[in-house]
Amino acid sequence: MEQTKIYYNKSLKPRNPILLVGLPGIGNVGSLVGEHLKSELKAKKLATLYSPHFPHQVIMLKSGGIRLVSNRFYLYKNPSKDKGARDIMILIGDFQALSSEGQYDVNEKIIEFYKQLGGSTVYTIGGYNSSNQYIQSPRVFAVTTEKPMIEKLKSNGVIFGKAAGMIWGSAGLLLAFAKKHKLQGACIMGETGMLEVDAHAAKAVLEVLNKQLGLKVNLDNIEKISKETEKMVKAMEEAMKKEAPGHENLSYIR
Amino acid sequence: MEQTKIYYNKSLKPRNPILLVGLPGIGNVGSLVGEHLKSELKAKKLATLYSPHFPHQVIMLKSGGIRLVSNRFYLYKNPSKDKGARDIMILIGDFQALSSEGQYDVNEKIIEFYKQLGGSTVYTIGGYNSSNQYIQSPRVFAVTTEKPMIEKLKSNGVIFGKAAGMIWGSAGLLLAFAKKHKLQGACIMGETGMLEVDAHAAKAVLEVLNKQLGLKVNLDNIEKISKETEKMVKAMEEAMKKEAPGHENLSYIR
Amino acid sequence: MEQTKIYYNKSLKPRNPILLVGLPGIGNVGSLVGEHLKSELKAKKLATLYSPHFPHQVIMLKSGGIRLVSNRFYLYKNPSKDKGARDIMILIGDFQALSSEGQYDVNEKIIEFYKQLGGSTVYTIGGYNSSNQYIQSPRVFAVTTEKPMIEKLKSNGVIFGKAAGMIWGSAGLLLAFAKKHKLQGACIMGETGMLEVDAHAAKAVLEVLNKQLGLKVNLDNIEKISKETEKMVKAMEEAMKKEAPGHENLSYIR
Amino acid sequence: MEQTKIYYNKSLKPRNPILLVGLPGIGNVGSLVGEHLKSELKAKKLATLYSPHFPHQVIMLKSGGIRLVSNRFYLYKNPSKDKGARDIMILIGDFQALSSEGQYDVNEKIIEFYKQLGGSTVYTIGGYNSSNQYIQSPRVFAVTTEKPMIEKLKSNGVIFGKAAGMIWGSAGLLLAFAKKHKLQGACIMGETGMLEVDAHAAKAVLEVLNKQLGLKVNLDNIEKISKETEKMVKAMEEAMKKEAPGHENLSYIR
Repeated sequence: MEQTKIYYNKSLKPRNPILLVGLPGIGNVGSLVGEHLKSELKAKKLATLYSPHFPHQVIMLKSGGIRLVSNRFYLYKNPSKDKGARDIMILIGDFQALSSEGQYDVNEKIIEFYKQLGGSTVYTIGGYNSSNQYIQSPRVFAVTTEKPMIEKLKSNGVIFGKAAGMIWGSAGLLLAFAKKHKLQGACIMGETGMLEVDAHAAKAVLEVLNKQLGLKVNLDNIEKISKETEKMVKAMEEAMKKEAPGHENLSYIR
Repeated sequence: MEQTKIYYNKSLKPRNPILLVGLPGIGNVGSLVGEHLKSELKAKKLATLYSPHFPHQVIMLKSGGIRLVSNRFYLYKNPSKDKGARDIMILIGDFQALSSEGQYDVNEKIIEFYKQLGGSTVYTIGGYNSSNQYIQSPRVFAVTTEKPMIEKLKSNGVIFGKAAGMIWGSAGLLLAFAKKHKLQGACIMGETGMLEVDAHAAKAVLEVLNKQLGLKVNLDNIEKISKETEKMVKAMEEAMKKEAPGHENLSYIR
Repeated sequence: MEQTKIYYNKSLKPRNPILLVGLPGIGNVGSLVGEHLKSELKAKKLATLYSPHFPHQVIMLKSGGIRLVSNRFYLYKNPSKDKGARDIMILIGDFQALSSEGQYDVNEKIIEFYKQLGGSTVYTIGGYNSSNQYIQSPRVFAVTTEKPMIEKLKSNGVIFGKAAGMIWGSAGLLLAFAKKHKLQGACIMGETGMLEVDAHAAKAVLEVLNKQLGLKVNLDNIEKISKETEKMVKAMEEAMKKEAPGHENLSYIR
Repeated sequence: MEQTKIYYNKSLKPRNPILLVGLPGIGNVGSLVGEHLKSELKAKKLATLYSPHFPHQVIMLKSGGIRLVSNRFYLYKNPSKDKGARDIMILIGDFQALSSEGQYDVNEKIIEFYKQLGGSTVYTIGGYNSSNQYIQSPRVFAVTTEKPMIEKLKSNGVIFGKAAGMIWGSAGLLLAFAKKHKLQGACIMGETGMLEVDAHAAKAVLEVLNKQLGLKVNLDNIEKISKETEKMVKAMEEAMKKEAPGHENLSYIR
């Protein structure tokens, strides 16, 4: 296996699909959002991407079976009979490509596959590290490939012009390749701080997506995780205050 | 040399062969099992695989010669005249591929070669790291590509549903590629702890294989190594008890 | 995207162009010189080079847009109607290729593209690390592909025979590929010490280039940065003298 | 430049040439031997090998010129009119390939080039690290691709059966590829200890080569370096004895 390959269930026919990408990354915001949408929308497996640029690992399943690490596309069929109604493709996965060469290869193949299915709009989800403290009220930032996308995102609570720097991996490269292939795209980033898995930031992004995509996805599950995290963080803060009174304004280094 | 290549002795004709893979890995369980079977079954060299993904090394031989690092297939001709009798191909080697790209390449080439010889069933052997202490009575775990394989393995003492996580390298990827090429396969893992070379775990796997493959391979040699290891471990434990009385429940970090 | 690619604005027609390369490197001398010339000469975007050998990053723009990391060619049209008048192509960029294989690939593609546009003379700009102290009066060194280039550079204040060792990356490889493709080239290096961004060294190189290429590029902006740096360095020296009197001859380790 | 390439001066016609390989490695024994032979035999440049697997560096020359890093073949025309007289090709270089994939590629290309010129016998030169102390009387070890070579090497003072383990890089891979292409070869290793550049070991190898190849190469230059090294080592030993009397049996760790 020397090439990245996508295996595709041809019986599923996406209708003018939006691509929503939730892969592992900063604060695991992408994965949390992607997995939540996939399970709440009961999306069906559409395609699987394997690549020699992923780690050479298989995952042991509880059933006694195995699964090669992959990225997976799920399809949510929009029930609306509306002519303009759009299906949603959700891309999740175990890993991103390890090397830079692998990232360029895998991400362009994703865009080519999506375009071939009639796709035109890509949303990638990521985390934006703005501090090393726990973020109580995470903001949602974005960048886009096209100016017209900015207004609608702004009206749904997304902040522009405050995020700066670099975006690594699929969240960024997929936009670059979308642009190259004349598709439009945006990277939506939940603000995150000290946490490796930040359900708080994921919830903030999901609230934006509900509005942006006209969805009514239930957020109870992600809220539950988010609240448990908050409890843990508070307990840690209490414990540290006792140990070091007077130093309440602490920062937690990952 | 830019490609992985397999050189093959065409005069040997494997009959419906089973592939048994014992390559270097955790606790060296795979290598110990593979080398033991090869020498006890007096298997003959069938093929040699070279790859630019292996280290750039040659091995100096006692004879004054050299040998390029490789993976090697050996063939055990089943003496039974039975129609259903199956030969056994044993794959051993000095190294696994160094990079992820190399692993995907080498392991798919192994499956393609095996399939071309009429193969249908792959067993890979590995170690399963369950603790950082010496394991007195190693259990044997497995995962498979197909449900029907589970029952027979269970009846031969293999435990399912207790091993979790990732399998790295050939032990895992060969199963993934077996599945892709419509072959069946299992990864059989001997439980191992603190040892770099764990003959104890290898013996446990060999006992399972004797039953699973209907073999009567003598285990004296592996038992000898296993007992010597146990003596060494006990001596170490005694020495440590003297130095740190009252801390008998020690763990040994590799 | 598995290949390095150059996208080219064919409406711009370079006339017997000189290529001037200012990419990131030691003391950022190349980038400072390239960016300064590009903006002072109001050069126009001619071409963009993308490569899977660059980091897998996109840059967030203040406008809310994104840009894939790249190397970019700008064209300065020489206003002279003179028959021998030459345009100047300036190459700047966010990164150089990460791996050795990538460097060989990207740099030969640059030379091939330049040659195809009728190019014959390449100047690469770099920093030359001669000490770990701040350099008050940076010298300018060079190496060339052809002896005849040496005299003119010398007459413009460049020192030959004092720089020794290796040149890494584009500054060196572009000369090697120029030579291979029968073009001439020189690497001009500003002497630099402890600074990560050394505008002082860049200014020294720009003074040479003004003479060498018959330009009258204004140096006020680079001088401003250079003077601020000098102030900072002096403040640091004062602070250190106070802390460690009698050890004035300090060296600053980056 | 995506491929390893060899540029070849076709006017030089090697006559049944022996290939002698002296590349950088342990104790720099290979390079010392190769460079010494090249200059003593006044060998002429025959070919240059460039590769994207070498570091991305050019070397600044005293003349003000540059040179891309490479491996270089030199040809010594045997003056004998004898029918069986053989020329000698000497391979030296700045670096070996950086990656394993690069090593497999470059070394097979070297053998293919040599074979195409009518070659049949390869000697690679290396260092053999037998201790971390300075070796007073370095022995010379070897391994070969063919048994018949052993006797002649033994009769010239080479020791067989004492060196064990792995040979990394060109010194080993060239033999492996020689074997694959039906050529014969030997790797001759000078015993070395604590030194990064061990002229002592190089001299021992050169003495063997003089006999093995029927050469009369003058060893004065290498002896001079060797003696200076010995003085330095003795001075160090004296200094250390004074500092730590009673600990004369020291080992020097590189």
